[in-house]
Amino acid sequence: MAKKITNQSDDYSQWYHDVIREAKLADNAPVRGSMVIRPNGFALWENMKQALDGMFKETGHENAYFPLFIPKSFLSKEAQHVEGFAKECAVVTHSRLKSVDGGVEVDPESRLEEELIVRPTSETIIWDSYRNWIQSYRDLPILINQWANVVRWELRTRMFLRTMEFLWQEGHTAHATKDEAVEETERMLQVYRTFAEDYMAMPVVTGTKSASERFAGAVETYCIESLMQDNKALQAGTSHFLGQNFAKAFDVKYQSAEGEHEYVWATSWGVSTRLIGGLIMTHSDDQGLVLPPKLAPTQVVIVPIWRDDEQKANVLEYCDGITAELNEHDIKFKLDDREGYNPGRKFAEHEATGIPLRIAVGPRDLENHNVELARRDTLEKNIVDRDGLGNHINELLVNIQDDLYDAAKRRIDENTHHAESYDEFKDIIANKGGFVYAHWDGTAETEEKIKDETKATIRCIPFEGEKEAGECMVTGEPSLQKVLFAKAY
Amino acid sequence: MAKKITNQSDDYSQWYHDVIREAKLADNAPVRGSMVIRPNGFALWENMKQALDGMFKETGHENAYFPLFIPKSFLSKEAQHVEGFAKECAVVTHSRLKSVDGGVEVDPESRLEEELIVRPTSETIIWDSYRNWIQSYRDLPILINQWANVVRWELRTRMFLRTMEFLWQEGHTAHATKDEAVEETERMLQVYRTFAEDYMAMPVVTGTKSASERFAGAVETYCIESLMQDNKALQAGTSHFLGQNFAKAFDVKYQSAEGEHEYVWATSWGVSTRLIGGLIMTHSDDQGLVLPPKLAPTQVVIVPIWRDDEQKANVLEYCDGITAELNEHDIKFKLDDREGYNPGRKFAEHEATGIPLRIAVGPRDLENHNVELARRDTLEKNIVDRDGLGNHINELLVNIQDDLYDAAKRRIDENTHHAESYDEFKDIIANKGGFVYAHWDGTAETEEKIKDETKATIRCIPFEGEKEAGECMVTGEPSLQKVLFAKAY
Repeated sequence: MAKKITNQSDDYSQWYHDVIREAKLADNAPVRGSMVIRPNGFALWENMKQALDGMFKETGHENAYFPLFIPKSFLSKEAQHVEGFAKECAVVTHSRLKSVDGGVEVDPESRLEEELIVRPTSETIIWDSYRNWIQSYRDLPILINQWANVVRWELRTRMFLRTMEFLWQEGHTAHATKDEAVEETERMLQVYRTFAEDYMAMPVVTGTKSASERFAGAVETYCIESLMQDNKALQAGTSHFLGQNFAKAFDVKYQSAEGEHEYVWATSWGVSTRLIGGLIMTHSDDQGLVLPPKLAPTQVVIVPIWRDDEQKANVLEYCDGITAELNEHDIKFKLDDREGYNPGRKFAEHEATGIPLRIAVGPRDLENHNVELARRDTLEKNIVDRDGLGNHINELLVNIQDDLYDAAKRRIDENTHHAESYDEFKDIIANKGGFVYAHWDGTAETEEKIKDETKATIRCIPFEGEKEAGECMVTGEPSLQKVLFAKAY
Repeated sequence: MAKKITNQSDDYSQWYHDVIREAKLADNAPVRGSMVIRPNGFALWENMKQALDGMFKETGHENAYFPLFIPKSFLSKEAQHVEGFAKECAVVTHSRLKSVDGGVEVDPESRLEEELIVRPTSETIIWDSYRNWIQSYRDLPILINQWANVVRWELRTRMFLRTMEFLWQEGHTAHATKDEAVEETERMLQVYRTFAEDYMAMPVVTGTKSASERFAGAVETYCIESLMQDNKALQAGTSHFLGQNFAKAFDVKYQSAEGEHEYVWATSWGVSTRLIGGLIMTHSDDQGLVLPPKLAPTQVVIVPIWRDDEQKANVLEYCDGITAELNEHDIKFKLDDREGYNPGRKFAEHEATGIPLRIAVGPRDLENHNVELARRDTLEKNIVDRDGLGNHINELLVNIQDDLYDAAKRRIDENTHHAESYDEFKDIIANKGGFVYAHWDGTAETEEKIKDETKATIRCIPFEGEKEAGECMVTGEPSLQKVLFAKAY
């Protein structure tokens, strides 16, 4: 059997697409830059949604749903927002087709008076509603999240990482005070960090964006950034403190307990199906997808092996006992008893789809009261006792989750550098890649020069780590702390 | 306080909109015919989704996600489909805006080569994928469902019942044989019936549509139909047997075990946020929304009542014991201890939002070791013992669920008639409304004549009940069974 997945070391980008295809996560769709999320990919997204949604609800948020279409005029209301953001959008101009010679054409008579924009993000349409919902301080805070599809007409697309249409959640909150809004922005950043690290086993750095990388309309953008296996950074989630910008643009005021009319303070925050791309590029290998047990739709696959009908009956009966025990232990498993596929082919398929553990059971295992357990992450195989299998597997799933995080953390640490001069910085970016901490003078000019000369951007001004003052590696001007650079997706 | 909800008997349509507003289910959105689903409405939809999704998965289906945009040419491929269906659609023609004088305009240079249609339903884009996924009989059946937003450019809209954009699920399955596909169509109809009756407490009639009411592209459309309080029928869900129509249009064949290449058989089936409209018009009253306990986001609200700080402390302590007990019993509750609202206002608000049970607790209840329980459906109040409250409430929630179904069933039965002549039929439709069973000759001409003269349509050719032959009430031609007529939403 020809190897279906290109090696990472040969062509990382091709490897990425091969993994997506072989794990049946997604297909390219007929419209350029859009994709079909297949059942394996969507089950993963459902698990991510469920974990995140639980955390949003625990922190007091409710879900709602706002319209897909935004009147064009709304996008003009917040000047920075439209300037920085809203240009590459899908525009609806007509509302009817008509039959022409067995085909269909757009009916020119159905032209809309005002064009509609397919939401690239929902701040404008949501703040138009908030104006009606907010009168008094008693109506605040509003803590709403939406799970939705959005469209951005991207020119260069890559599955999951940047697609024309993608699925995401967008939180939009309204508060009486600046402090509360800032606190919310920070709270949601921590929710994202917890999700990335505890569920995805993907270590992240948190910090704020530089002005030029900030969300259009935000006063401050907080982010989580991770480092992929090819030493490029991935922005995995953002949480924005919007100040009073949208409240002013949409005239949203509240009456305080003291009777004053004041503008409301706002946040927004989001993560998307891009996280699936991050997950793939954090853990997967030349055999295909590797999934952390907490997010894997199937945690264990059981492959029975037989040569004749008698063996088959005995092996499947043995498997019945195993499935009953896994059920009792709340382990998500499937039994692959398909006929007409040899075990090697089944093994390769389950490795490609990233199932964390495989149990193989053959006639000899029955005799010895054993099973063979194979870990997807390390590809280690072990013969283990049939007794206590459920407990053993649950412990192992916890270990795998932890080991995946530790391995990713080690990899990122090994690829995190400090540059003390611009020459050293350029050398690292050109020859090693990875995260590079360096001093920067805080100006957009220097940031731009570095980007032009090295393609590295400021991923964030990090919250963690030493805050040692120094001098900008480019200009020698004073710097309060090192910031985090990398080439990024 | 002025009454905020119009009486049903004064203006049913206004009552419907008042209930939606006072229950905070949804708002009109800025774009005509679209709506904002507020947290109360969305929580209800989430509960409906969760119950339905569980039933879909139990019957072997997986979720996936297909693109929002469909190339215009796809809609020409299945001739009946485009003829009957795909005309009133949102059409995307451009991909960019540009800044002009502080506002934005559509950039004429961004005109697309082929226009994109915002999906009105996804058969075409999904069957384009299925062509790539299906080679052999081993790839069948494909049992996929999608939760998504769709857009139909409706001229006459009404919140939840018919909106330009709505949320729904659409199942799309592919099978090796006709029998399997028909079985799937029937299975999903039964899932919808179970959901409508067991969760929504909304009795339905099941049957097939007449040819003129069939889904465009279907060989047979099965449906569930219910009767609303104003004696108009509501189509609440449909399940379509699509034969080989889409397989032929998109050239989807499989190789059978015998090596033959054959077209695949298909079904599709869907329910939408329209169900929320059906729920409102099945149970609600002049005080507002009435929700069945199985779907209510909040099943019980606790309203503590006090006059001074000492009473407040004692009452809230008593409530702590109650909330602990409700938690133990897995009852979804909230405690309304807001300051500055009198109990009467709180009661009215919770009645408007449809919470099935209210517990009121005042100082006297502490003395007597009681609580006051009020049922939303009957508005009955009872003083009940504090001991055993959790069990008592769980029983009561089951009773309310059953009573709501029984009351709706009684109402529908009382408003279901049999017409033995066309004069009798016209009299019932004009003066009583409701479901009317009558004999029909099976022709589109007679169906059309009845519709023109009475505005009643054939809701379905029912599966249930007597199949007694007779003569068409209009033409006297033979009829195998009575069919179900009504004026409908």
